[in-house]
Amino acid sequence: MTITGTTRLYAILGDPLNKARTPERFNALFAQRGIDAVMVPAEVDAAGFDAAVTGFKRLRNCDGLIVTMPHKQAMLRHVDELHENGKRVGAINATRRMPDGRWIGDMFDGRGYVGALRAHGIELEGKRVHMIGAGAVARAMAFALAEGGIAAISLRDVDRSRADDLARAVHAAFPRVRSEAVDTDRYACEILANATPLGLRDGDPLPCEPSRIAPATVVTDVIPKPEITPLLAAAKARGCVISTGRDMVEAQIDLIAAFLGLPAA
Amino acid sequence: MTITGTTRLYAILGDPLNKARTPERFNALFAQRGIDAVMVPAEVDAAGFDAAVTGFKRLRNCDGLIVTMPHKQAMLRHVDELHENGKRVGAINATRRMPDGRWIGDMFDGRGYVGALRAHGIELEGKRVHMIGAGAVARAMAFALAEGGIAAISLRDVDRSRADDLARAVHAAFPRVRSEAVDTDRYACEILANATPLGLRDGDPLPCEPSRIAPATVVTDVIPKPEITPLLAAAKARGCVISTGRDMVEAQIDLIAAFLGLPAA
Repeated sequence: MTITGTTRLYAILGDPLNKARTPERFNALFAQRGIDAVMVPAEVDAAGFDAAVTGFKRLRNCDGLIVTMPHKQAMLRHVDELHENGKRVGAINATRRMPDGRWIGDMFDGRGYVGALRAHGIELEGKRVHMIGAGAVARAMAFALAEGGIAAISLRDVDRSRADDLARAVHAAFPRVRSEAVDTDRYACEILANATPLGLRDGDPLPCEPSRIAPATVVTDVIPKPEITPLLAAAKARGCVISTGRDMVEAQIDLIAAFLGLPAA
Repeated sequence: MTITGTTRLYAILGDPLNKARTPERFNALFAQRGIDAVMVPAEVDAAGFDAAVTGFKRLRNCDGLIVTMPHKQAMLRHVDELHENGKRVGAINATRRMPDGRWIGDMFDGRGYVGALRAHGIELEGKRVHMIGAGAVARAMAFALAEGGIAAISLRDVDRSRADDLARAVHAAFPRVRSEAVDTDRYACEILANATPLGLRDGDPLPCEPSRIAPATVVTDVIPKPEITPLLAAAKARGCVISTGRDMVEAQIDLIAAFLGLPAA
């Protein structure tokens, strides 16, 4: 990769970014496809976020911005147009400058999750999903699962009202999907998804009780590092197929590259 | 070069940047010295400049900004502290975030020019210089030459008052240097410097009359591209030693790297 005065610029904004793999993945993609562009980390806190985005948007050679925690909701106010999925989820993680100068945004967390499942050969049609957590990532995942054809989703969150809200929103957008908030985990499902941060830190409690998971259930996590969380390790030991947070990130790269309008390989 | 989430960020702000060599030169230096950092182009016009700088300064991993045309004066308002040389010239082209969070700025155009002369084996002590142009670049060069030990400088500019101002300022800062504005070029000198943009575009008139330049006179230009301007080509044909605008840029790289606090190779 040679960066010159004509190289196009992309940045990922987040805090912290020390574990972010997006720059490496995109720069490899640029190199592979012969695109004269670079993706750089832009570590910025919530207080500096608006100024940072405003600055990047003034750069004539900046064509897109990737956004990660904790800025996915704040980024909404910086786009001129929101794709359907970003609207539903209420957060975006990719934005692009269009040829006419407008900035558009969309959310790829959910589609990355579903893409990772499909890459593991898992079909969604007719499946029952139990999801632990109903926060921002869970919202993206739930809508993408519903769009992907699941039959039902049960949602448990420490904040019951948040689970209620998401259950209602999923049902409103996809009336054929049975969607409900629950107070205890439902193990009678084909896909069990952790969408909480439990497992990120050493000593976190497990998000649910692995001994109750059937070996035929697919178990998934959203945590990219450690890739094999204690939940996934326990599920694997029981013989379950698993899909990791890293799989979810990897599956987004090509989707975001297409959204950014990058030429194919 | 592998850019990760922990890579430090530098940018060069200018308009246009299509001929800028700074990103390539700095990225080569980072690679050579094993520094996990990247320099990217940030092409921004005068209207967007303040927002762009404000944004970069909010990024926790941004440690410095290089500034080129037309922003060298505008950058003054974005630093907390100005080094002596930047103060004299009234413009800066490099800024750095200090460990305590303050941004400091300095100007390296003049020292780059002098560094290039020295790299060509040209001593400045006691020399008489004639300079064509008294704009921003000329200011930087004149002060650096005076600092470098020249005996005298004559300045000719289409705007006589600008040449008068600079002559007075150089004399005020370096009283031992004879410094004067003149209305016609003085060929009785050891160094003849073009500090105007004449030679940048095809069909530009020559800044002075090459047939009057003695072969023993060193002739220099500030235009990086074309590297050999018509003036330099004519001087070379007469047997003069020359120093180019590109030499001047190259000589700045190590100076700016030191200012940025980058570890040595």
